[in-house]
Amino acid sequence: MSQGEFDIIHQYFDRPIDVEQGVTLGIGDDCAILDIPDGYQLVVTTDSLVSGVHFFDDVDPYRLGYKSLAVNLSDIAAMGAEAKWVSLAITLPSIDEHWISEFCRGFFALADKYQVQLIGGDTTKGPLSITVSAKGIVKKGQALRRNGAQPGDLLCVSGPLGDGGLGLAVKLLIGNCDKVDNQQAFIDALELTEPRLLLAKQLVNFASSCIDISDGLSQDLIHILEKSQCSAQVELENVPLSEAMKKQIQKGHISQLQAWQFAVSGGDDYELLFTVPADKIAAFKQLLNTQVVSKEAVCYQIGKITASLASNQQKETIEHSASSHRAITFTHLKQPINLDKAGWDHFK
Amino acid sequence: MSQGEFDIIHQYFDRPIDVEQGVTLGIGDDCAILDIPDGYQLVVTTDSLVSGVHFFDDVDPYRLGYKSLAVNLSDIAAMGAEAKWVSLAITLPSIDEHWISEFCRGFFALADKYQVQLIGGDTTKGPLSITVSAKGIVKKGQALRRNGAQPGDLLCVSGPLGDGGLGLAVKLLIGNCDKVDNQQAFIDALELTEPRLLLAKQLVNFASSCIDISDGLSQDLIHILEKSQCSAQVELENVPLSEAMKKQIQKGHISQLQAWQFAVSGGDDYELLFTVPADKIAAFKQLLNTQVVSKEAVCYQIGKITASLASNQQKETIEHSASSHRAITFTHLKQPINLDKAGWDHFK
Repeated sequence: MSQGEFDIIHQYFDRPIDVEQGVTLGIGDDCAILDIPDGYQLVVTTDSLVSGVHFFDDVDPYRLGYKSLAVNLSDIAAMGAEAKWVSLAITLPSIDEHWISEFCRGFFALADKYQVQLIGGDTTKGPLSITVSAKGIVKKGQALRRNGAQPGDLLCVSGPLGDGGLGLAVKLLIGNCDKVDNQQAFIDALELTEPRLLLAKQLVNFASSCIDISDGLSQDLIHILEKSQCSAQVELENVPLSEAMKKQIQKGHISQLQAWQFAVSGGDDYELLFTVPADKIAAFKQLLNTQVVSKEAVCYQIGKITASLASNQQKETIEHSASSHRAITFTHLKQPINLDKAGWDHFK
Repeated sequence: MSQGEFDIIHQYFDRPIDVEQGVTLGIGDDCAILDIPDGYQLVVTTDSLVSGVHFFDDVDPYRLGYKSLAVNLSDIAAMGAEAKWVSLAITLPSIDEHWISEFCRGFFALADKYQVQLIGGDTTKGPLSITVSAKGIVKKGQALRRNGAQPGDLLCVSGPLGDGGLGLAVKLLIGNCDKVDNQQAFIDALELTEPRLLLAKQLVNFASSCIDISDGLSQDLIHILEKSQCSAQVELENVPLSEAMKKQIQKGHISQLQAWQFAVSGGDDYELLFTVPADKIAAFKQLLNTQVVSKEAVCYQIGKITASLASNQQKETIEHSASSHRAITFTHLKQPINLDKAGWDHFK
């Protein structure tokens, strides 16, 4: 890159460090130097967003900057950790100052909201892609992992599901989603997801396992079940849908079944999916269906963890059942329901 | 990606974690969980290698895997830190099992040599690019930064310079490098660089500042001078050249001046450039020109830090002199020499 191009990049990406946030040395040396408080562990996640795979070339740069950080912070939240620092590697086909300015505005809007410090990265010329590596801290031994669920645990989510998936369907013009009105609400749900970092702080006191829903409730629940060697029941009538989604059903733009399918298989919701063990339920119930930390983060019980799968044969089954979801039983008013055979194809 | 593609990737990238290396949780959850020993700080660096920018599409995958890690570990070494963990985000145009196998073989050859653990990452379909984020630990307050050089400090490097730059010239067929024989030695120097992690452990006891030479001695020395507000003298007769480079001079394939130009401006050497303060020189001199930790890592004094630049005007000069190198005086047998006007163009 030319000196002028470097200057433009520095102007937007180099920001003052905050030593109170544990940054001894930020951008401008071979490495950043970070302080982990005594008694804490470091959590680290890395996610790439590649043009043509995760977003369109003409994506709004503000929203791309926002979301490239949001998906990483969501992983930090899923560990019950506090987000602290982030590295950003960005490959740009050209230096478009307006684009960079907007990207940074979106990125730092979210970073500043949660006091996350940009501590380094790399800028290269090439096909547009973004790799963010986020780091957080959690009290030693308190991190929420995927392997802690037990039979009898409540299964909960941190907010309505399906809007992100419907937003993607609307953007991709998949199936008959052209009937859907108020489309911007669903696209916003897709592009401006809120990492549940504030709720995560509370969940470390209650949850036995946790994951963020990026690939869809069903896929991500399978990850918990696989690591915890359990099965689960999901009560569809208790899976929360947004007011915007409910209106589409009322107007007949989509069916109830299709709404459930978006909620179960749509992905891109970035709500937390977690389990609460029996001995924590009484204390946790105060959080259920109440506004825990903000108007967005409301916890809903959507089912429970059922049998433990201990034998090797059953283990084999669950590890290879990601697509068939045999470890999950979906019910509606206590009757089993097969979502795979229920018209989802209209939207594929 | 399809399930089959995921399986191939997991087969090569998922490796057992080593809890003795501070990894409480590795690949397979939302985040990795890492333990930083009490009294240590975390150092973090991120570097991207993009096809068509940093390497050719047909690059040998073993060497690409090796080098994508090596350049990051070199940054960890430049802080005087111990490399511990690494995340790998890789974007691949297709799943070529042989290519992935070779890439991993190169990557893990180096990772295993220094007991560096792969703790996470992301694999995506898209134009070939690799982003590595390496993490290390260093005793609190002992990290080697760029801002500690003082007038009177020795200026040293950890090995011969110029081979990487000549290797790149050979690969790119720049100028009259077709005369150069034994070309593979220079290409090896470019592609199989050794991060100076073992030397780095010793340097924390001696060095006042340190950087790794990725962009060339001149450019990287400027970074130290800029941060330390100093100027420097480089004695060209003391800048170490490899035996392979000396042979090219003896055979008349390149001139002495051209060899110096590769050493000063070529880049891609990944040796450490560091300064040693007056009160540490006596103890440090035992390391000079001796095999410190391996046959590759030998320390050479190549000059000294001279005047301190304290005034704002001088500071202004140094911050904008990266291309003209006005803060560096090059000498040969005490006579100033201007490398910019000395035939480098033959190789451009």
